[in-house]
Amino acid sequence: MRIGVVAPSTPIRSDVAEAVTALAAAHAPDVEIVFHPQCFLVHNHFAGSDAARAEAFVTVANDPAYDALWFARGGYGSCRIAEDAIARLAPAARAKAYLGYSDAGYMLAGLYAAGFEQVAHGPMPQDVRREGGEAAVRRALDWLGRREAGSLEPSLDGQAKAAAFNITVLSQLLGTPLQPALDGHMLLLEEVSEYMYRTDRAMFHITSNPGIRQVAGIRLGRCSLVPPNDPDFGETEEQVVRHWCERSGIPYLGRADIGHDADNKVVPFG
Amino acid sequence: MRIGVVAPSTPIRSDVAEAVTALAAAHAPDVEIVFHPQCFLVHNHFAGSDAARAEAFVTVANDPAYDALWFARGGYGSCRIAEDAIARLAPAARAKAYLGYSDAGYMLAGLYAAGFEQVAHGPMPQDVRREGGEAAVRRALDWLGRREAGSLEPSLDGQAKAAAFNITVLSQLLGTPLQPALDGHMLLLEEVSEYMYRTDRAMFHITSNPGIRQVAGIRLGRCSLVPPNDPDFGETEEQVVRHWCERSGIPYLGRADIGHDADNKVVPFG
Repeated sequence: MRIGVVAPSTPIRSDVAEAVTALAAAHAPDVEIVFHPQCFLVHNHFAGSDAARAEAFVTVANDPAYDALWFARGGYGSCRIAEDAIARLAPAARAKAYLGYSDAGYMLAGLYAAGFEQVAHGPMPQDVRREGGEAAVRRALDWLGRREAGSLEPSLDGQAKAAAFNITVLSQLLGTPLQPALDGHMLLLEEVSEYMYRTDRAMFHITSNPGIRQVAGIRLGRCSLVPPNDPDFGETEEQVVRHWCERSGIPYLGRADIGHDADNKVVPFG
Repeated sequence: MRIGVVAPSTPIRSDVAEAVTALAAAHAPDVEIVFHPQCFLVHNHFAGSDAARAEAFVTVANDPAYDALWFARGGYGSCRIAEDAIARLAPAARAKAYLGYSDAGYMLAGLYAAGFEQVAHGPMPQDVRREGGEAAVRRALDWLGRREAGSLEPSLDGQAKAAAFNITVLSQLLGTPLQPALDGHMLLLEEVSEYMYRTDRAMFHITSNPGIRQVAGIRLGRCSLVPPNDPDFGETEEQVVRHWCERSGIPYLGRADIGHDADNKVVPFG
């Protein structure tokens, strides 16, 4: 079992790779993790130029020696390469799993839109730096290595289709070629570091989209590090999401166990 | 000539209404400005509840005694009422002009999408509080009162169709029923108080949209109060917009004289 790590958004430091490698050696000795050197490149905001990030992603995705492609971390930048890079993928790329969240959502969306069948929202190597983050990395390894059911978000019943996204990321890919068909899916959403008025605005955008209105329902993960709204927004994140679900006729299904934190569970798409 | 002012987003204070009324009395004595009491309501983030804001907008828009509806200010909130409120408009609403920018862009978009013919992006009453803001208000009154050509953004040639938006606002209405057809239009864009990575992300979103790819070209207004990117983004706003125009095959036409400032010129839609 070999996992290739690439960074289509922002770079990781070598100590993150070392910590994850050591953790994997102890927890899942059958798993080999290869951090592509591109993970450590720095070009302005990004882990290397658009070309370097796309090349690393395409190389690992198309290499049959890898069973999985693991996104190193979020940040910002994968939307700049997603459409073109996914168009360059060969049949071998369809045989592997893809795992990440946050800004990696552009890649997950585009892969799922292109019919890839092993795409999942879940922890990334950079999470090892969170408090309790080793558990998140182990959870990811358990899913990547042996599809461990204990890694999964608990509301997933194995019957209904599902997908998960950061709220801002999903909003910002609506109407682009990256938007996947999500009709009949349970849609799990989470957010971090956004003012409540922005989450409200993004939920207007998401729930006004004709494609999104075809989902089976929305579950709300954690919204963390919300800056204080001035003036007070007067509604919690759950009230905001309920409001837009009611306005748009989308069933609100309750909370989800995902978020920008160490407890973030795995949500396989489909 | 009677102008009705409503606030579909956030409230204004009475001293703004007084300053604008006094300025209009001196500059355009033939213009009567009526500030709807809803402008001063406060409900959490908004100038009154969604119902109160929608009701004031519909009442003034449908009243033939008004020649124009002027949006009081931006902020956030008009997306919560735009679609439903515009659906309630009567034929009398089509005979008047609508002027605003920033968050009012949701209303402008929806009105233009619904075929309204006198919709314009330009200064609002709250601008009187900016340094030099009296000039912005006079410019708006000149356009509202007598379609003064000197109020217009200088690249408008009276031939090509045009439209103007705040970048974030346009991004957040893509794919919703508020998105107007802009094929063949010169699209003028401006931004305020957004990190450069967010402007880059929003430009990805905007220029990836099939409808937006039909515009005749994009002009970039001012991007003001940009918080420092960490790390440095390495590209100016013009480089960002040129990048996405090139990527998407949209002609980049140069700068535009619009922005969140006292120099903001008027851009009539169409």
